[in-house]
Amino acid sequence: MSLLLVAKNRDMSSLGEAIRATDPNIDVDIWPGVRNRERIQFAVSWRHPDGIFESYPNLKAISSLGAGVDHLFADQTIPEKIRFSRVVIPSLAEQMADYVLTAVLNMFRDTGTYIDQQRAGQWKKHPPLRKDEVTIGVMGLGELGRESASRLAMNGFMVNGWSRSKKELNGIRTFSGDEIDQFLQSSNILVCLLPLTEETEGILDLELFKKLRRPAYLVNVARGKHLTEEDLIYALDTDLITHAVLDVFEQEPLPDSHPFWGRKKITITPHTASITDPREAAELIVENYKRVLSGIDLLYEVDRNRGY
Amino acid sequence: MSLLLVAKNRDMSSLGEAIRATDPNIDVDIWPGVRNRERIQFAVSWRHPDGIFESYPNLKAISSLGAGVDHLFADQTIPEKIRFSRVVIPSLAEQMADYVLTAVLNMFRDTGTYIDQQRAGQWKKHPPLRKDEVTIGVMGLGELGRESASRLAMNGFMVNGWSRSKKELNGIRTFSGDEIDQFLQSSNILVCLLPLTEETEGILDLELFKKLRRPAYLVNVARGKHLTEEDLIYALDTDLITHAVLDVFEQEPLPDSHPFWGRKKITITPHTASITDPREAAELIVENYKRVLSGIDLLYEVDRNRGY
Repeated sequence: MSLLLVAKNRDMSSLGEAIRATDPNIDVDIWPGVRNRERIQFAVSWRHPDGIFESYPNLKAISSLGAGVDHLFADQTIPEKIRFSRVVIPSLAEQMADYVLTAVLNMFRDTGTYIDQQRAGQWKKHPPLRKDEVTIGVMGLGELGRESASRLAMNGFMVNGWSRSKKELNGIRTFSGDEIDQFLQSSNILVCLLPLTEETEGILDLELFKKLRRPAYLVNVARGKHLTEEDLIYALDTDLITHAVLDVFEQEPLPDSHPFWGRKKITITPHTASITDPREAAELIVENYKRVLSGIDLLYEVDRNRGY
Repeated sequence: MSLLLVAKNRDMSSLGEAIRATDPNIDVDIWPGVRNRERIQFAVSWRHPDGIFESYPNLKAISSLGAGVDHLFADQTIPEKIRFSRVVIPSLAEQMADYVLTAVLNMFRDTGTYIDQQRAGQWKKHPPLRKDEVTIGVMGLGELGRESASRLAMNGFMVNGWSRSKKELNGIRTFSGDEIDQFLQSSNILVCLLPLTEETEGILDLELFKKLRRPAYLVNVARGKHLTEEDLIYALDTDLITHAVLDVFEQEPLPDSHPFWGRKKITITPHTASITDPREAAELIVENYKRVLSGIDLLYEVDRNRGY
């Protein structure tokens, strides 16, 4: 039996080594260098080329190499009987919480303005935003959303949280389902950590931006497709939104000619909010590989009907 | 009786209003508009002109309008019998902890590099510093130092603390007195929150920088005079120090021609780490004013022999 690693634009060799270091008895194939397709029962994918899984007759399950599984659902050629799972490791949630906290603190402390002033040799103070006047709204309360919301609250920020089904979280005012307008109207800084599904695609649009409390800010750390990009440009140009921090984009790498690059009111990072550590991922992958071979339940298995 | 507010480069009228709002029975004089010098028993100073207090025959105590009292000690014309106190309010320590946390997170997450890359339209990932490989050393464990160290530890960072006399702090490895070399050798990011005294003036010098663990970083949020400025430039140019975040300077505002302005490896903010909120300060000032009139102990009184 063998374990397959597949990625379109990512070198999977360090993950392969980490898996062999975790369990030297496991055979690992790295796509496209597959020795025998019939031996593959479990695959780990990071944006695989659509359609490739049809040629693996004994494939039983595919794990995403991250918390998001939208790239698995997007490939409609994957047979329904194949199970999906995700890589959920504590450091992913911790890194995400660090990124969100950094983005929020930089908004509160005017970091961008002071960097510009330094370039211009200008000494000028600006009053920081006040923690008792600005509320952060975290949309999506999965592992990453919960950790980010909790860390913000722990650091003295006022935090709202919204999720499809009701969640209770210490120190956070939670909303669910159709309470979304109440949630938006009482949030200034919107942090998107939703799963990408048919329902959430394009959800960050002009209609949503108009509902936010002013001054309004956006942090998108989920998927580029959550954001209606032209609506964000309109919202920034008309001061509906004061500033946006974006780590994900509809097309990555962000194309050279994209209008986001040159904007002062947008902060861009190249999808670095949360990076999977091969050593940590390897342990979970090895565990799930053994579970596939034994025919038992997977850890962090995804509900293929619900979509996340 | 009357309360005097003195500042060289700061408008004290909002503090005066806040004091009158707290207690309308208090007479407030704002320097230089003093009606009757003999009525002044208590003064609040933010960098007063040296020598002015000699002409107030009934002055009993002076409060700094911040946590630092070095500007009071620097004026050697103040009679020895006059007591000193400080303004210590929770929001000063919280703002400072926010600033220090922001500076540390931005070092870990390469914020400056990504801002430069965005300007150049460049999409390139850099591995972040790891929390289990980089230690932050907080020098000075007064109210501001303790709060900053605790907040860093609460956010998952490894934290050392050094103070003149031994302190015990949850989750922080503390050093004291002559253990300073051990402290420096096990710290990467040095955060200076010392009081400014004869002993600590110029303490951030080349000799100290050489003792830090590499990669080494500096955050100075105490006083400009803690830093030997030309030594920092040498240490940055020779890569002894990777990056410095400075909120305070020997001369403020930082002069136009100062070599710090143009350096990529320095982040400058215009003394904004922690700003006294007039409403909060007023309550403490009113309380201490009444204590002066009653002849009882002051809150946050300073030991004039120790110097802080």
